[in-house]
Amino acid sequence: MLNFASDYTEGCHPKVLEALVRSNMEQLTGYGTDAYTESAKEKIRDFIGCPEAEIFFLTGGTQTNQTVIDTTLRMYEGVVSAQSGHVNCHEAGAIEYTGHKVMTLPSHEGKMDAGELDSMVQGFYADSDHDHMVFPGMVYISHPTEYGTLYTKSELKAISEVCKKWNLPLFLDGARLGYGLTSKTTDVTVKDIAGLTDVFYIGGTKVGALCGEAIVYPGGNAPRQMVTLIKQHGALLAKGRLNGVQFDALFTDGLYTEIAGNAIERAEELKKVFTDRGYRFFIDSPTNQQFIIMPKKTLSVLDAAGVIYSTWEPYDKDNMVVRFCTSWATTKEQIEALAKILV
Amino acid sequence: MLNFASDYTEGCHPKVLEALVRSNMEQLTGYGTDAYTESAKEKIRDFIGCPEAEIFFLTGGTQTNQTVIDTTLRMYEGVVSAQSGHVNCHEAGAIEYTGHKVMTLPSHEGKMDAGELDSMVQGFYADSDHDHMVFPGMVYISHPTEYGTLYTKSELKAISEVCKKWNLPLFLDGARLGYGLTSKTTDVTVKDIAGLTDVFYIGGTKVGALCGEAIVYPGGNAPRQMVTLIKQHGALLAKGRLNGVQFDALFTDGLYTEIAGNAIERAEELKKVFTDRGYRFFIDSPTNQQFIIMPKKTLSVLDAAGVIYSTWEPYDKDNMVVRFCTSWATTKEQIEALAKILV
Amino acid sequence: MLNFASDYTEGCHPKVLEALVRSNMEQLTGYGTDAYTESAKEKIRDFIGCPEAEIFFLTGGTQTNQTVIDTTLRMYEGVVSAQSGHVNCHEAGAIEYTGHKVMTLPSHEGKMDAGELDSMVQGFYADSDHDHMVFPGMVYISHPTEYGTLYTKSELKAISEVCKKWNLPLFLDGARLGYGLTSKTTDVTVKDIAGLTDVFYIGGTKVGALCGEAIVYPGGNAPRQMVTLIKQHGALLAKGRLNGVQFDALFTDGLYTEIAGNAIERAEELKKVFTDRGYRFFIDSPTNQQFIIMPKKTLSVLDAAGVIYSTWEPYDKDNMVVRFCTSWATTKEQIEALAKILV
Amino acid sequence: MLNFASDYTEGCHPKVLEALVRSNMEQLTGYGTDAYTESAKEKIRDFIGCPEAEIFFLTGGTQTNQTVIDTTLRMYEGVVSAQSGHVNCHEAGAIEYTGHKVMTLPSHEGKMDAGELDSMVQGFYADSDHDHMVFPGMVYISHPTEYGTLYTKSELKAISEVCKKWNLPLFLDGARLGYGLTSKTTDVTVKDIAGLTDVFYIGGTKVGALCGEAIVYPGGNAPRQMVTLIKQHGALLAKGRLNGVQFDALFTDGLYTEIAGNAIERAEELKKVFTDRGYRFFIDSPTNQQFIIMPKKTLSVLDAAGVIYSTWEPYDKDNMVVRFCTSWATTKEQIEALAKILV
Repeated sequence: MLNFASDYTEGCHPKVLEALVRSNMEQLTGYGTDAYTESAKEKIRDFIGCPEAEIFFLTGGTQTNQTVIDTTLRMYEGVVSAQSGHVNCHEAGAIEYTGHKVMTLPSHEGKMDAGELDSMVQGFYADSDHDHMVFPGMVYISHPTEYGTLYTKSELKAISEVCKKWNLPLFLDGARLGYGLTSKTTDVTVKDIAGLTDVFYIGGTKVGALCGEAIVYPGGNAPRQMVTLIKQHGALLAKGRLNGVQFDALFTDGLYTEIAGNAIERAEELKKVFTDRGYRFFIDSPTNQQFIIMPKKTLSVLDAAGVIYSTWEPYDKDNMVVRFCTSWATTKEQIEALAKILV
Repeated sequence: MLNFASDYTEGCHPKVLEALVRSNMEQLTGYGTDAYTESAKEKIRDFIGCPEAEIFFLTGGTQTNQTVIDTTLRMYEGVVSAQSGHVNCHEAGAIEYTGHKVMTLPSHEGKMDAGELDSMVQGFYADSDHDHMVFPGMVYISHPTEYGTLYTKSELKAISEVCKKWNLPLFLDGARLGYGLTSKTTDVTVKDIAGLTDVFYIGGTKVGALCGEAIVYPGGNAPRQMVTLIKQHGALLAKGRLNGVQFDALFTDGLYTEIAGNAIERAEELKKVFTDRGYRFFIDSPTNQQFIIMPKKTLSVLDAAGVIYSTWEPYDKDNMVVRFCTSWATTKEQIEALAKILV
Repeated sequence: MLNFASDYTEGCHPKVLEALVRSNMEQLTGYGTDAYTESAKEKIRDFIGCPEAEIFFLTGGTQTNQTVIDTTLRMYEGVVSAQSGHVNCHEAGAIEYTGHKVMTLPSHEGKMDAGELDSMVQGFYADSDHDHMVFPGMVYISHPTEYGTLYTKSELKAISEVCKKWNLPLFLDGARLGYGLTSKTTDVTVKDIAGLTDVFYIGGTKVGALCGEAIVYPGGNAPRQMVTLIKQHGALLAKGRLNGVQFDALFTDGLYTEIAGNAIERAEELKKVFTDRGYRFFIDSPTNQQFIIMPKKTLSVLDAAGVIYSTWEPYDKDNMVVRFCTSWATTKEQIEALAKILV
Repeated sequence: MLNFASDYTEGCHPKVLEALVRSNMEQLTGYGTDAYTESAKEKIRDFIGCPEAEIFFLTGGTQTNQTVIDTTLRMYEGVVSAQSGHVNCHEAGAIEYTGHKVMTLPSHEGKMDAGELDSMVQGFYADSDHDHMVFPGMVYISHPTEYGTLYTKSELKAISEVCKKWNLPLFLDGARLGYGLTSKTTDVTVKDIAGLTDVFYIGGTKVGALCGEAIVYPGGNAPRQMVTLIKQHGALLAKGRLNGVQFDALFTDGLYTEIAGNAIERAEELKKVFTDRGYRFFIDSPTNQQFIIMPKKTLSVLDAAGVIYSTWEPYDKDNMVVRFCTSWATTKEQIEALAKILV
């Protein structure tokens, strides 16, 4: 069986598991006050080059988006997202559940355009009725996006400038951040992200951990009483060590970057396999998610061979868009096995 | 160092860890659709004797209380709890955050009285203004309570009958359920609980897991679209296997009961240590949390010896109420070491 | 001064005022339990031909939309609206504030298309990930729309059928319902609306009252404990008589229809004034709101003459879209005066 | 028929009605931007002696409490109220609906004790677990209280000082403020209230208006974008003139004070009627609500004579606590007629 369905099919990276095993019988204080959590925070501060950063570990992506957005916005504000943003499409209304509108802009292969953002906000304030409307209150982008694409540094700077111009906090969803940072073509570093955003998160669940996302406020600009707010959102782990130990391992000796890099190597090989055989890509993705326009009869071949992938959307009568994911756990052998099946 | 501060100071029970290690590299589907999660559910159904039960795994206690209560109540209803209930005191307003009032009754060593519940609801409907008031919509009890006490079977039956009389779903918070079920003095079995409540949860975090609580709807009476609701509350793990594997291990070969039993054995020894030395108890607790009225000078001795406990509340000028917890991980040797320090 | 800015610039219709004056010193019970409120409900039941209808009087349009939608939807559901719907654009996020997403469809001159609605819901259920998405839970339409347009009976039937097919309650916002019912070109009666929707409201504020909207559940299908829910939403008037007396007057001897008819007569005259002078309409509106493409230099003439209108949106470099409203209070003389100014 | 059931049984004071009639056909701008609303605000600023005050008109008491509290509190905070506070008992959970806990202190004939407030907040911060608890975030008091009682100036000062000490905004619910200000025994002026609170409201509904409450931020300290927040809460009237005209009339030539004074005169006469006949009072109220311990057989006499009152609560086997209200509309003749019935 070859499973390319997603990047969260395995447990955690063996070194993360080892750290959990090693620390298991230590008695530690709860709610993220333990030494591993502190150490993890310190290592992340080094990684991003922000000694003042405030960091909080939550358990999953939707929870993180919900908690960050709800605690950043004022009551009368909404969050601006690309139409295709995870917060808009695939979080079961978790943002609206907290009382806030998701305000959408067109999606350009998953990305928001700085100019369109500027026009939207300008249009809002130019509207004489805007007191009766939802105020744009912050901006949400994902990097990599839901389509595996990446912002260039200049695109990110442009969005950041529009945000500063209109005084809108910029939040970057990094559920797959590792895969973005290690992409062959990116010119965006984590330090760029720390410098250009007001808050972002470093995803663990999809990059080597069993669970866990690290929210980072690069300037030490977390909301007041953030621990209380996390508790109120049902998002505070009693055994905070579970996140702390994992992130401590991920940020020891460059593990996070190394294992994300593996997914990128495999994704490049995967692209070559498809390209060599003449398959078309739905989107040109430089990260670990690859979207291929696949003839339905090829899908039958794959299904028969036990290859697992995600069905994305219909393309036309004869073709489907499907997603193949690599991860820290994908091996060269798996790619080669797939190549043989595809002939 | 002797740490009796809480029952969540260690990681997970070695057999749970072993299961995580063993399954780690298997590729499994996400969001709780994997085979371990299914197996865990099946074992829990056996354990409670309810083949029709619907079961959902969440990550922590406050999250579980918040999600269960918010999805059970109608919009105009509140949840009735003892004044000392965790949902009323120590969840940072997580229930009110979802729009519902916590309506309180007196706490009798942590417990609610069935008669007082009946009077409250009767008084509510007798009030000609009750359309302008919050309707009592469900009842929340914890077992063991926040003070380590337990309902007797007849107390539980009485509450359940009042609930049925007024058509109020009964929800039992079992964050420490294992310690309640294995108490020396209890006459309440898990099958009693399944028969007398509408929904309850079996706590994992405090009884051997790294995280995880199993919500049980004994009659298959979960709210519609419960998975969507869990997602909306930010409580759906992508790697649902993390909970599934742990609960599968906990409910294999009676592990859950066995390790909870260890905590009870140690708690009985601990009680004897204190009783033999003439200490008074603040509450007569039959479970793993022991509340002792401790002279401040004894506390200094303990502090000097590196013994860790929880400070509960001031008792009088010279004494404090402190809490000592045992757990699945507490050893006979630790109790003996404490005994020596207390002389 | 000629003021065509909106249909809520005056107080209330003289006969409504008379009823308030006449009843003012009567001592009546509060919260909508008085005899005038009962009488108003009975008259509305007659008007719509639904003897079983449940009726509730609220104070304003946004409050009504918020209360109806929040109490109709399940927690995991959103409301489907045309992009241009009032609930989506001009209610300051009042719907999202209650926890629900507004899900949008294209606006066709303010209207939703039944086919597009069907496709959207079909697409939702066809998506294998729909458990992670907001469920379409009800449909919101306005009649007249925000652009003054009206659904035909067959369009309304088509939407109603799609709603029935997918089990979605259909809610019609009738803030300006009177103007829709008395339009020269409509084939939709209030009885059609009562038969084809699950809930609608009859607007008072914009059709002759000082305040007040009548929510109608034609089949007696109001949510349980609706009075409590209205109170909880801050929408229950202590002196419910204020709404009751006004609606009683509006539905005595056909007043509501008569005064709405006046607005339509004046709107037809207004259209003629503009048409005769060669002005173009932005939208062909059969009700009391008229949207004209107006050269900026004409606007200067109007401004100088003290004519008041609403600026809608820029049309092109030289023209603006402006709105002229008539109401129950607009006179033939005012239209003639405008005609002289426009030459 | 003699109706003492409440102070909102009539419409509005004749002079208020006159103002509505007089202004009815004027064309005015919507949403509280009209000249009457401006004039009313200016007159209230004079009345309270705060030229910088920001003032907003809402429609009813629960709506006002809900909007003020929700927009003042931070997300992790609750509002502290006496157990008997309207927000805690009779608003159908309108406060919790907005996500906030009502935290209660003992009620002393409806009043909160400054010392108990101080102890509660001190205890909160002294609790090492307070990060897991709801933070006290503001204080709610009513004046007159739900039992007709009044704070003395020194009591009010003491509460205000505790609030300042802990940085808690103080909110005074003045649904019946007029009756408090004109009480024979009070030493509290409206200027005292403006000086000692952060926000309060002047009730119109129960003191001469058809509807309407004036929220006052004495120091111009309203939340940002208050109009948008009011709209979002469904509380913004399109015809804001309805509130504006009424409050403008109420604050012209001392009408508000004059008509509240009438209620107090009548209440004093009412007290004498009961006292002379040997009835006992449940509470010694100096305002327009009188609570009498009434033998059930007397109630039969009153019922037979068509006297209407409110039943409050059972007192003992033979007696009920009942409420008699006077208002701006109560006449000397009505009191005399009651006196004759009671003999």
